[in-house]
Amino acid sequence: MDLLIHRDELVRALARAQGIVEKRPTHAILSAVLLQASAEGLRATATDKTMTVIADYTATVRTPGQVAVDAGNLFQVAKVLSGDIVTLTLTENGRLEVKAGASVFKLSTFNAADFPVTPALDQARALTMDAGGLRRVIDRVHFAVAPDDNRYGLNGAHVEDTAAASGPVVRFVGTDGNRLCWAQAAYTGELGIGRRMLLPRKGLGEIRKLIEGYDGEVSIAFGDRAALVQYPGVMVHVRLLEADFPDYRQVLPTGFKRRALVDRDALREALRRVSILATDATNSVRFQLSSEGLVLSARKLDAGDSREDVPVELTGEPISMGFNARFVIEVLGAMEGSRVSLELGDALSPCILKDMDDDNALFVVMPVRLD
Amino acid sequence: MDLLIHRDELVRALARAQGIVEKRPTHAILSAVLLQASAEGLRATATDKTMTVIADYTATVRTPGQVAVDAGNLFQVAKVLSGDIVTLTLTENGRLEVKAGASVFKLSTFNAADFPVTPALDQARALTMDAGGLRRVIDRVHFAVAPDDNRYGLNGAHVEDTAAASGPVVRFVGTDGNRLCWAQAAYTGELGIGRRMLLPRKGLGEIRKLIEGYDGEVSIAFGDRAALVQYPGVMVHVRLLEADFPDYRQVLPTGFKRRALVDRDALREALRRVSILATDATNSVRFQLSSEGLVLSARKLDAGDSREDVPVELTGEPISMGFNARFVIEVLGAMEGSRVSLELGDALSPCILKDMDDDNALFVVMPVRLD
Repeated sequence: MDLLIHRDELVRALARAQGIVEKRPTHAILSAVLLQASAEGLRATATDKTMTVIADYTATVRTPGQVAVDAGNLFQVAKVLSGDIVTLTLTENGRLEVKAGASVFKLSTFNAADFPVTPALDQARALTMDAGGLRRVIDRVHFAVAPDDNRYGLNGAHVEDTAAASGPVVRFVGTDGNRLCWAQAAYTGELGIGRRMLLPRKGLGEIRKLIEGYDGEVSIAFGDRAALVQYPGVMVHVRLLEADFPDYRQVLPTGFKRRALVDRDALREALRRVSILATDATNSVRFQLSSEGLVLSARKLDAGDSREDVPVELTGEPISMGFNARFVIEVLGAMEGSRVSLELGDALSPCILKDMDDDNALFVVMPVRLD
Repeated sequence: MDLLIHRDELVRALARAQGIVEKRPTHAILSAVLLQASAEGLRATATDKTMTVIADYTATVRTPGQVAVDAGNLFQVAKVLSGDIVTLTLTENGRLEVKAGASVFKLSTFNAADFPVTPALDQARALTMDAGGLRRVIDRVHFAVAPDDNRYGLNGAHVEDTAAASGPVVRFVGTDGNRLCWAQAAYTGELGIGRRMLLPRKGLGEIRKLIEGYDGEVSIAFGDRAALVQYPGVMVHVRLLEADFPDYRQVLPTGFKRRALVDRDALREALRRVSILATDATNSVRFQLSSEGLVLSARKLDAGDSREDVPVELTGEPISMGFNARFVIEVLGAMEGSRVSLELGDALSPCILKDMDDDNALFVVMPVRLD
């Protein structure tokens, strides 16, 4: 293997690989990136066994070949290289020589044949959607997916197809038991319904990073155990979670007794301020709604208390209830519009938050009991 | 107490206090900042018992008074306040009310009388120096002071007066046993020589922060157990370390066998690159000097090796020796000129580094043994 590559392109390849490979791998080769040079350029593959990213990069290949090398080491080296053009050469004694400017690095390698093979996936049935739409859906759902729950089914985003007024949409749903979010976007093609379509949290986050700045179409194929997300030059294979997602429609309130309309930024900033004096563990802030407006207040033992008024338009009876401020702040941060509606039942019923400018997402936050 | 203060001025006061107060205090009051309002404005005092910072801020005082309040809590609140003008009021039930925009915070307080008193210090004998000169001196010495050595005398910068061609200068010296740096600047007035003048590392760092952006003169008075650093509106009381600094002149080489002149940035960047493949614990990089130039190289087990050529002008015989790359990089980072001289003895003798544009600082780095 012998090739020339622009340093920025190499750094881009390795930054991606770094996000995937295991930091404390059970097998040394799981810390490696597989480099494959061919007439088309350089292909880099990284995996943590639950997901694999395969991506193509522009390179001038003088001798095709392949090698696996520790992704972290090569990334560290690539970042500091002087000079724009980097030469990568597999030497006769099996080391990867990295040359740029006045620097020469010789890195230990792994045998490319030992690198884990990504299982094939039937791509006959795949849906196609706009990358911008997929970004918006992930941004509205990812933060609510449980990071590491022992209710295993909560550790991923559930994917399903449903119908909107505009036509068929694919909906992602995430919850950690304290809040639940869904968001949806139009698609064409076929959503090959498997028994379970639960995309793990890490996979969702990596897909989001990979489509950042890309504006074309993305294809997603689902198999029984894995999903394959693709756009030209990039292929992500994600193993689906083998667990059941709860029947989320059952927990969605079907009506409301009171509704408050409020400015999104005003509510978010006020919550940030008031929650400074919320108790650290519960982060609970009191919401007092009346025809006078919304009064937020919090109290932290030995520190003091806080209070702020936020103008709202309320329909229905006054109420006083508590929320974990962080959960509400994160939901408000996942929206883009300027006005938000809060649909409320009783003091211990779930609250539905909606971006008034966006019918394609819905957020539910559970209240907390105030003492 | 009742006063109006601009939010930015309050944030500035509390950011300073935050750097001083103890994060996990042995007594709760050591986490507090003392606020004293008088006709002149607001005075804020923070201490960790080894150092005390007293600083004055612009405020419109309606009712004089004083109170102590948790510095961290008030800082967190001040940072997020909406509105430019903040009202601070001590309420009848002894809480500090903080009002700005639509927010009201009521913070628990401590009795101002319980706040530790800063011992007085005789200021009759004090030196005066330019703030810029003091900044340069601290920047060249602070990083080399041991952070927490059991040779207690290394945990501070030694201060002495000495004579330069230009007249009397005050010299600061720091070492952690691996490198030693001194830097000096002109002063007027009197350096009241005490038995020990060892400024602790934390105090040195805080003084540096306090004089950032200030361009006037700074006065430093030394007592037997403390130093007092002052400029208009700011007073820092620092307890001196009760320990002996080694006789540093003994370890300074008095001559050299070989000397290399090198571009500072080129050497620093090359060291950064090559040291990526240095062994983590020792960080050691080989310096091979010959008439051909300087070859830097490193090797890390299981990872690989690195090498880079740096042009130098060498006087004297070729030599091969090792240095901890981080120590050399930090020394080069403390200089400002473009050319550096390395004065070398044998492979295990200390190396003197000098900024060719600066006679008022000197850096010594101990070599490491290469296997």
